[in-house]
Parts: sequence; C-alpha cells; structure tokens
Amino acid sequence: MPSSPPSELPLAELPTVADIRAAAARLDGVAVRTPLLESPLLNRRLGGRLLVKAEPLQRTGSFKFRGAYNRVALIPAAERPNGVVAFSSGNHGQGVAAAAAMFGAPATVVMPSDAPDIKRANTEALGAAVVAYRRHHDDRDAIGAEIAARTGATIVRPYDDPGVIAGQGTIGLEIASQCETLGVTPDAVLVCCGGGGLVSGVALALAEVAPGVPVWCVEPEAFDDTRRSLLAGERLGNPAGARSICDALLSPAPGVLTFALNRRLLAGGLAVSDDEVRLAMRTAFECLKLVLEPGGAVALAAALTGKLPLEGRTVVAVASGGNVDAEQFRQALSG
Amino acid sequence: MPSSPPSELPLAELPTVADIRAAAARLDGVAVRTPLLESPLLNRRLGGRLLVKAEPLQRTGSFKFRGAYNRVALIPAAERPNGVVAFSSGNHGQGVAAAAAMFGAPATVVMPSDAPDIKRANTEALGAAVVAYRRHHDDRDAIGAEIAARTGATIVRPYDDPGVIAGQGTIGLEIASQCETLGVTPDAVLVCCGGGGLVSGVALALAEVAPGVPVWCVEPEAFDDTRRSLLAGERLGNPAGARSICDALLSPAPGVLTFALNRRLLAGGLAVSDDEVRLAMRTAFECLKLVLEPGGAVALAAALTGKLPLEGRTVVAVASGGNVDAEQFRQALSG
Repeated sequence: MPSSPPSELPLAELPTVADIRAAAARLDGVAVRTPLLESPLLNRRLGGRLLVKAEPLQRTGSFKFRGAYNRVALIPAAERPNGVVAFSSGNHGQGVAAAAAMFGAPATVVMPSDAPDIKRANTEALGAAVVAYRRHHDDRDAIGAEIAARTGATIVRPYDDPGVIAGQGTIGLEIASQCETLGVTPDAVLVCCGGGGLVSGVALALAEVAPGVPVWCVEPEAFDDTRRSLLAGERLGNPAGARSICDALLSPAPGVLTFALNRRLLAGGLAVSDDEVRLAMRTAFECLKLVLEPGGAVALAAALTGKLPLEGRTVVAVASGGNVDAEQFRQALSG
Repeated sequence: MPSSPPSELPLAELPTVADIRAAAARLDGVAVRTPLLESPLLNRRLGGRLLVKAEPLQRTGSFKFRGAYNRVALIPAAERPNGVVAFSSGNHGQGVAAAAAMFGAPATVVMPSDAPDIKRANTEALGAAVVAYRRHHDDRDAIGAEIAARTGATIVRPYDDPGVIAGQGTIGLEIASQCETLGVTPDAVLVCCGGGGLVSGVALALAEVAPGVPVWCVEPEAFDDTRRSLLAGERLGNPAGARSICDALLSPAPGVLTFALNRRLLAGGLAVSDDEVRLAMRTAFECLKLVLEPGGAVALAAALTGKLPLEGRTVVAVASGGNVDAEQFRQALSG
C-alpha cells in the first residue's frame, strides 16, 4: 500500500449534477432503487431517526455497480467491443464485470494472485477474465496499461473518473426523493469513504436537490486520509503499514477529482474503529436484517456511536455493500 | 405441542379480496412495501429467475406486522383502549405489540416463561406487557381468556382470523404489482406455511389479480400438516414430538379458515429439511445480503433444491422473516 498520493492522474472536468441526472436515467430499470430502511426499536434506542440506504441490495452487492455501469455506458459504442479493464479484487471489479456483460463488452479484471478464491470465482461468473498479478512483484498499472494498449480496452478507474462519480451520485438523488416521500429533511447524511467517489457523488447531488443538508464522510481510523485532508486543505496519504478490517476502503489517498469536490462540498470527516464497525455489522443484522461488509458499515458505525449526534434528529447513513465472507461475518456476530 | 387439530374455533366469514384491498389501503405508508430481490449470479446457477419477496425488511422483521396492524385497525375505536392480547413468543407477538402501540392500544403478550430473554425484551421494548406462563403447567388459552374477560381486550389470533389473513394477503397484491413492473408473470409462487395465514392470504390475492399463477405452500418436513391435509382433503395434525429448527412454523395443524381457503386455492404443498433450510439461509446471506430466520427460509429452500423446477421459469419465493439469534445464524453460516 503506497503511503503517498498518486500524482499523475489525468486531469478531467469535474462532474456536474446534470451528469448525475443523466446517470440516473441510464440506471433506471437497470440498477436496484435500494430502500431506505429503519428500525423503530433502534430509533428509540438512539433517541432520533436513523435511515439506512441499503446498497448491499444493489446488483453485485454494493454501490459500485452504479458507477461502473454509467462509465461503461459512456464508452462510445464503436469502442465497447474492445472491452474494459479494471484493477480490483473486490466490489469495483464485480461492478465492472456485471456492467460490461450487460453491454456485451469483454471485461478484464486485474487482481492480486492472493485474492480469495470466492472473489475470483464471482468475478469470473459475472463473465470477466481475471488476470492475476503478484502483489509485491508486479506493477499492476503496467499490466493494465499493456492490456489497454494491446486491445484498445478502456480502463475503468474505481473513483477518480467523472462518469464513475456521477453513477455513484445517483444514490444522493434517491436519498432526497425517498426522504421527500417520508416527509422528512435529513439533518445530516453519512457516507463511507475510500477514494471518495461515493461521498463526492452523493454530496454533489444533495447540494443541488437538498441544499443545506450536511454530508459527512466516514473512514476507518487508520485510513482517515480524507478527514485529515479536509482539515489540511490538501490531499494527504495514509501512513505505511496501516491496517483495518474494512478491505473496501483501503485507498492510499483521496482522489484528485473526488477531493476537488469533497473539499468544496463536505461538512467534514469522521473516523471509526474496527470494533465500532463490528458493532454496526451486528446491529444491522439484529435490527435491519441486512448483511453489511466491514467497509459498508462505517457510516452506520458513526451514527451508532454518537460520532455525530442523533438525539432528536433525522440522519441518513449509506450502507454501501454486503460482500463479506461467512467466516468474517460470523466473527463480527460473536463480538 | 398438541397433535390433534383445535376444534372449536369460532366460525367466521372467510375474507375476500376486497378485505385484502382494504387492508392494503390501511397499511399504505405504515407497512414497508418490501422489495422483490434477485441475484443474477443465483439466477444463472439455477437456470431460471428467482424473485425473493423480502419480508425481513418489514417492520418488526417479519410479515406478521401486516396482519396484526390490519386486525387492530378493525377493532372499533371505542374498544381499542381495552387493549389486545396475543399468545406468542415470536413474530406474531412483536407484530401485535408494534401495531397496538401505533393505535395507542395497550397490548398483552402471553409467552412461555422459558422464551429467550431477547424476545421478551424486544416485545416489551415495543410497548407490550409480557405475561409469562409455564409451558407444561399452565393453560395459555385460559390465561388469555381471563385477561380478555377481565379487561375487555380483544384476542388477536395468529392466523385463523379474517382480518389477519387479509393483512398478510397484501403481500400477494404487492407481488403481482412488482412482477408487472418487471414485465414478468411468475410461473409459481412459493410461500411458507405454519398455520396458513400468510399463504392463504397471498393465494386469495393472486387468484384475483394474477389468476392462473400456482401458489404452493412450503413447510418443514416434520410439520407438513397442510401438505398432507391438502392431499387428504381434511385437516390433519402433526405427530407428537416432531422437531424442526423453524420455530416460526410449528403450528399443530392447519387453521379452520386458512385451510378452507388453502384447499380451494393452493396448487399443493412442499416440504424441506432443516439442512435445506440452513442452505437457504447461507444462500440468502451470500447472494441477497438478507438475514433470514429458519422459518423465513423454507420457500427459498424449496426453490434452491429443485423441489419445484426453476429451469427456464420465473418463480417468486416469499422470505417471511429474519428474527434469528446471532448464535443460530452463525451455525447456519458454518454449515
């Protein structure tokens, strides 16, 4: 895990709310309009109202499908047969594989050779070719660039891409619409943050359709690069050797595009411990009947532990994914 | 557990689809319109399309809230302050407690003294008074009748009540509407069966709004009283000493009203083993990110194990609840 931020990301236009609306039109009838769940018992315990956007119920088990599908849709039709390439052992890879298959585009997912068999099998079952690299020997980017150069495939980045951010932002539009149906205006929205694609998209959408609602990013304690970057006003990386059970959120540093949005749009950053994440996984099991992966539980963890006050308020927490191994889930339940 | 069917249930009019529509109007904006979930990976594995109606996401974690709320709504307003009484250590008790609280009616739930602390605590947290009885010494019905006679409270039966059946039937209306939105007509609908309130209500609704769609009930192998009763043409009880992990489905025999509907409306009955139920719980965890309790997983189990052929077909399975202890869920995951 590199400790300094990547520096040579291609400059591109920042996405706008018009891009998010266009993404929503593309995803209509394709992505799941996931429900906003709540538990009256949990609300009573917290003394407020907690609404949980349930992206584990999304295609491929996480929000990543939204951004991937929107990005693949933006590839000119004539280029789609050349395929797409993604680097990921997890949710992004599955999202890209599923999206590419729906467009008939071949997908290659580059993942470390020590990735769990189940993740490799799931990605292949979604129709993608998996290329393994040795985590400490091979240059993942070089492998992807070589595939792209040879085949004409488009590289689909996990977060620092306007089309990906716009796809994730559709969650913000849905939150606003679902809250309106409930007749509530949220006092805050909590969103997990790895590279920042999801939270920047959600914040961009809400700034337009629910202006004034504060959006907070939530990170694992050891990977709170966006929280610290927001305070410093510049992109800071995470220390070498940092550890967290939130495998979906272990980005080295904020993205260039995502941070440009987040520094302008976010109310701030919060951080949660692994134990707080396990508590959130247990609470989602008990009160919401929803399976959360560790990285998908950080926003809920921040709400449950009072990192953001809930008393007398209505707060939305985005539960971003549920792709967790049975053994890891069993351990969280036994805590 | 008595082995012979109860014989002195009060005769009442069977509910009609008009009752179900009236229940749907009452539940609109009160109950969760639960999603129909599916997993493309699971569909590919099964060679068909499996749609799962996700009632664990319902208020109180099971479908029981629907029938309870509708039944309490039918109590004349002047009588509601006298309260309601239910016998249940599980989902029905929680459904009645939550529904009564929403009408400001006091609720008493009569449960065995050896019921798990968590169930007692949840029922009390929903605002009900819990009265304990000794499972092998006390007469539960006499306790309830005494409370009702003394207070004027209304007894809310778990299934053999037209108002309760009508409430559960709203799931049938939603399935038909959600399938229409997807542009599909299901080839079959699978519904779990204890006393038969849920499956009879669903079948009644579908007979009207999706005529010709076969509805099957699914039971635990040792409690397949409705399956056998349908074959025999009369209500048969379960053998004494029968065991199943499906604690929500351990009714002694089909209900009078429910069986009168089911013998006319159902395509037949299927039965699944405890191991098949655990497999369904694991599959819902992996592919749907949904927590199922054992009794909530029997319909899915029948679909996954080919008890009803899925190849090339579209089948709806109702997942009826998710109120399962962490330890029991951990065991199912380790299977």
